[in-house]
Amino acid sequence: MEPLLARSVRLEDDGVHILDRRNFPFERVWVRCGTVGEVAKAIEDMVTQSSGPYFAALYGMVLAAREVRGLPRDEARAALDRAGRLLVETRRTNNHLRKAVAALLAGVDVDDDVEAGALRGALAGDERYRARSRRLGEFTAARLPDEGAVLTHCWADLYLTETVTAAQDLGKRLRFVCTETRPYLQGARLTAETLGEMGVDTTLVTDGMGAAVMSTGDVDVLLTAADRVTMDGHVVNKVGTLGLAIAAREFDVPFLAMVQAPDRLAPTAADVPIEYRPGDDVLHTLGRRTATERARGRYPAFDVTPPRFVTEVVTDRGAYAPHELADYYVGDVHD
Amino acid sequence: MEPLLARSVRLEDDGVHILDRRNFPFERVWVRCGTVGEVAKAIEDMVTQSSGPYFAALYGMVLAAREVRGLPRDEARAALDRAGRLLVETRRTNNHLRKAVAALLAGVDVDDDVEAGALRGALAGDERYRARSRRLGEFTAARLPDEGAVLTHCWADLYLTETVTAAQDLGKRLRFVCTETRPYLQGARLTAETLGEMGVDTTLVTDGMGAAVMSTGDVDVLLTAADRVTMDGHVVNKVGTLGLAIAAREFDVPFLAMVQAPDRLAPTAADVPIEYRPGDDVLHTLGRRTATERARGRYPAFDVTPPRFVTEVVTDRGAYAPHELADYYVGDVHD
Repeated sequence: MEPLLARSVRLEDDGVHILDRRNFPFERVWVRCGTVGEVAKAIEDMVTQSSGPYFAALYGMVLAAREVRGLPRDEARAALDRAGRLLVETRRTNNHLRKAVAALLAGVDVDDDVEAGALRGALAGDERYRARSRRLGEFTAARLPDEGAVLTHCWADLYLTETVTAAQDLGKRLRFVCTETRPYLQGARLTAETLGEMGVDTTLVTDGMGAAVMSTGDVDVLLTAADRVTMDGHVVNKVGTLGLAIAAREFDVPFLAMVQAPDRLAPTAADVPIEYRPGDDVLHTLGRRTATERARGRYPAFDVTPPRFVTEVVTDRGAYAPHELADYYVGDVHD
Repeated sequence: MEPLLARSVRLEDDGVHILDRRNFPFERVWVRCGTVGEVAKAIEDMVTQSSGPYFAALYGMVLAAREVRGLPRDEARAALDRAGRLLVETRRTNNHLRKAVAALLAGVDVDDDVEAGALRGALAGDERYRARSRRLGEFTAARLPDEGAVLTHCWADLYLTETVTAAQDLGKRLRFVCTETRPYLQGARLTAETLGEMGVDTTLVTDGMGAAVMSTGDVDVLLTAADRVTMDGHVVNKVGTLGLAIAAREFDVPFLAMVQAPDRLAPTAADVPIEYRPGDDVLHTLGRRTATERARGRYPAFDVTPPRFVTEVVTDRGAYAPHELADYYVGDVHD
């Protein structure tokens, strides 16, 4: 069964409908965005995250194409460029938004009809992302033990669901341990819920327990997504990944990081801007104040795991040691 | 100014009054325990924690002595033994309860009047604990930089407040970064509140952010209490300490663990039982469900940090390298 979060952005006649992940699964609310501006706002407000912004940007650009209906082509194209920049500006650490906009504009640029080209570009981008995630999932599943416990952090979205599906198809018997992933609790809400939907035995721990569960031999592999992987093997992912990866190496637990492709635009970690989100978010839990008024919060949304703590980076073309990522692009101009 | 949590257990005519730490500082509720059984229940229910159970046990035993008023001395003494065992059984990882009961029984055994001896034992135990924490705090403050940032985890209670007081007396300018310490949020509520009360610049991060803030050079020292330190230098403390200590070593941040004395009853880590608390607590935040219904929780309350990750153990007799803890007891029969 496909879990709910696998299709959580939908294009409809009245706009883009986005499943609100902020209080899921306690509430299942779809946010309707009637304009590309509303889509950008929804991404910025974290209505959706992980791969959600990619799909939201694709279909947000379709709304932008609808908004320029009837304009001369050059004006329409310029407006789409502006809409694309608006979307890309919402969140900077991940490349998804840039890629979604590029996929859409590629559709527009090969079609006489801007709106039809935009839709075709969006559908092609959607299918391409899913197909690549499926291949990535198959390669990842092949690297996992036939039976054992996988520790994961935050919410790896389609990379995770495709991995689990592929592992189930291979008859592997995997248990998952999820960190809750404060402050937004993606692990407690999105990952654990979706793994449960998929019939996976799921245990939740707090973000501080990862080293403890690895130290007692209860984990066979650490598996996370990466928002970006640099060409020299730095893994940029949800804050907390670094600490888990350091502990994993200490306790001989392999760390697999999943990304469709390493980022040719980022030779090394200095090329990736780290997003700081509002510190106030650390002082709250699902909208309720959970810290004293006397402290400020600090929220680096991502951290950078150096390659010495990474066992393999699994992509849609297979698994690579972190110092061999250039091989991904050998004999190829494809990104 | 002495912070509120420094005197959060009070003996009154109508019982022991314990400041409820479970929803502090949002609510400031004192729980009245009229009997030693109610004190044991309050400790078990986590009304108080850290050094709170020590003081609660001292004064809970005074209630037990009141309850046996008028009984023959041998019956009274046997009843006090039973009360002591009841208290010690509530929480097993820390030695505080055993020591509190011993302090009280020592008072009883040198006094003709059971009740008066109990009270004297309690007051002596109270004062001894505070005096030792004060010395420990002075030794710790001496090891801290004159200016810089201290990362701390959970709530180190009197060890922390005495350290801060001593550092302030020395004119040191320290900022603190506190982990929130899920699931009970002691860092977000107790540590950050109390440091704020003491005028310390305080930043809160989630439990997963420790490695990230250390990796960027923003932390000068990692400082935690220890519930126990074994004679061979293993630090048993709130779960999460291990991951922070491993990351600290990786980023050349010294880790100081504070304990009044290493535990002669625990030659090594195998001698310390690790308490598992209800997994359900991981699925909630301050009483509200914050995780899917589809997962189970797992809550090892403590983890064990091996000596290779510990820079120094600071005691009431000074700082020791983790492999030199036997020196604490040289020339001495004192515990």
